[in-house]
Amino acid sequence: MRDISTLSCADDLEAALREIGAERYHNLHPFHRLLHTGRLDKGQVQAWALNRYLYQSRIPMKDATLMSRITDPELRRNWLVRVLDHDGGPAGEGGIARWLKLCEWLGLDPAYVKSEQGALPATRFAVEAYVHFVRERSLLEAIASSLTELFAPGIHKERIPGMLAGYDFVSEAMMGYFRHRMDQAPRDAGFALAYVREHADTMEKRRLVCEALLFKCDVLWAQLDALHHAYVLDGGIPPGRFAPDRAMREAAA
Amino acid sequence: MRDISTLSCADDLEAALREIGAERYHNLHPFHRLLHTGRLDKGQVQAWALNRYLYQSRIPMKDATLMSRITDPELRRNWLVRVLDHDGGPAGEGGIARWLKLCEWLGLDPAYVKSEQGALPATRFAVEAYVHFVRERSLLEAIASSLTELFAPGIHKERIPGMLAGYDFVSEAMMGYFRHRMDQAPRDAGFALAYVREHADTMEKRRLVCEALLFKCDVLWAQLDALHHAYVLDGGIPPGRFAPDRAMREAAA
Repeated sequence: MRDISTLSCADDLEAALREIGAERYHNLHPFHRLLHTGRLDKGQVQAWALNRYLYQSRIPMKDATLMSRITDPELRRNWLVRVLDHDGGPAGEGGIARWLKLCEWLGLDPAYVKSEQGALPATRFAVEAYVHFVRERSLLEAIASSLTELFAPGIHKERIPGMLAGYDFVSEAMMGYFRHRMDQAPRDAGFALAYVREHADTMEKRRLVCEALLFKCDVLWAQLDALHHAYVLDGGIPPGRFAPDRAMREAAA
Repeated sequence: MRDISTLSCADDLEAALREIGAERYHNLHPFHRLLHTGRLDKGQVQAWALNRYLYQSRIPMKDATLMSRITDPELRRNWLVRVLDHDGGPAGEGGIARWLKLCEWLGLDPAYVKSEQGALPATRFAVEAYVHFVRERSLLEAIASSLTELFAPGIHKERIPGMLAGYDFVSEAMMGYFRHRMDQAPRDAGFALAYVREHADTMEKRRLVCEALLFKCDVLWAQLDALHHAYVLDGGIPPGRFAPDRAMREAAA
């Protein structure tokens, strides 16, 4: 990876950001490798969906806290699209409702998922770190932390066919969330990329933009580490958190 | 564990808090079981000390943010003792300096430890969640989240002889931090316990005090999960984070 503290122009910055994605995006995580190749059991997929709900649920809150700090109405209106995508709007349901459906189709009780009681503490800590980052850092860093969306279409392109082929309990309808994101993420990422290319106009700012993306990669990675630890490596499920039915797991193994 | 939503008096509250400690305190974590019985190698003990430094370093910041919200000078002065214990004061060095010495004696470069570069992202997320909790919740909950100190003497009583017997690279001098905490923690925990016994004067407040202690147990537990995952179960060390010397590990194994 190139030295992120000496990036001399917007093209260098963009190249560095793409390198970070190629090396640190969570498509590379062992848990995703298992998920996308049909090697998890249903309980493990449920654990993934339920924990990921907590992440999804905080994204519009993260975007709202960002909007609350934007003085330019044009920029704020651009950012609002993300909240509409996730929460829904006059045109209908958004991504969070679609994610909840995915959970329900996987056999989870939506009320239980929404209660957040089953999610791992480490998921919560990572997700909250993201919201706090966006609340506390500069606008430039806050916007830059969304840039993992540059790499989202790639992971969805792998996930959709991989999950459909790998699991008899996964249907085309369940992939609705990801199909929507295939269009939304590039639009959002393109906007954020253009923003950081324009506004990161010093070497120090370009470094901060890269650091923000590295931070966000850590946020995503840490969530999968926690899932992998608790549900794949048998590192222990904290008391009171989602525990897949053991009998079901043994039958599937 | 009793139902924490129906605690009818201070004695019930205290009994519930002690039950939470008996079931959820991190002395029960598998990583601590290994640490305290000589079953880790030096690199794994280094990883523990280095990550734990990040936690130690945030404790006085957490206490300062709490103090910044206390209007009663008497209560603030009582809380100040904790900052003096960790940061040091006119009488000399505090716990953070002692922890840094422990790291150095374990063969780590103190400048590297202080840079925080080697710490796991999950450690940072958990530790920051604690600081944010104390900043954002009620004073009662913030104070209650310190109550894990009720159970600290027990873990130190196990750790000091366990580490001295288990590792030829651990000396009596290195246990200085823990010996100091044997006196400090009960004094602080006694103060916080008396505070919550007096101020949690409704069922709802007693429940919130228990929830705060459960949250704090999660903060401690998640840090050990992350260590266990990265350094014991070989779940992967995130790029750029502390990697014990492989050769050293193999020699020790």
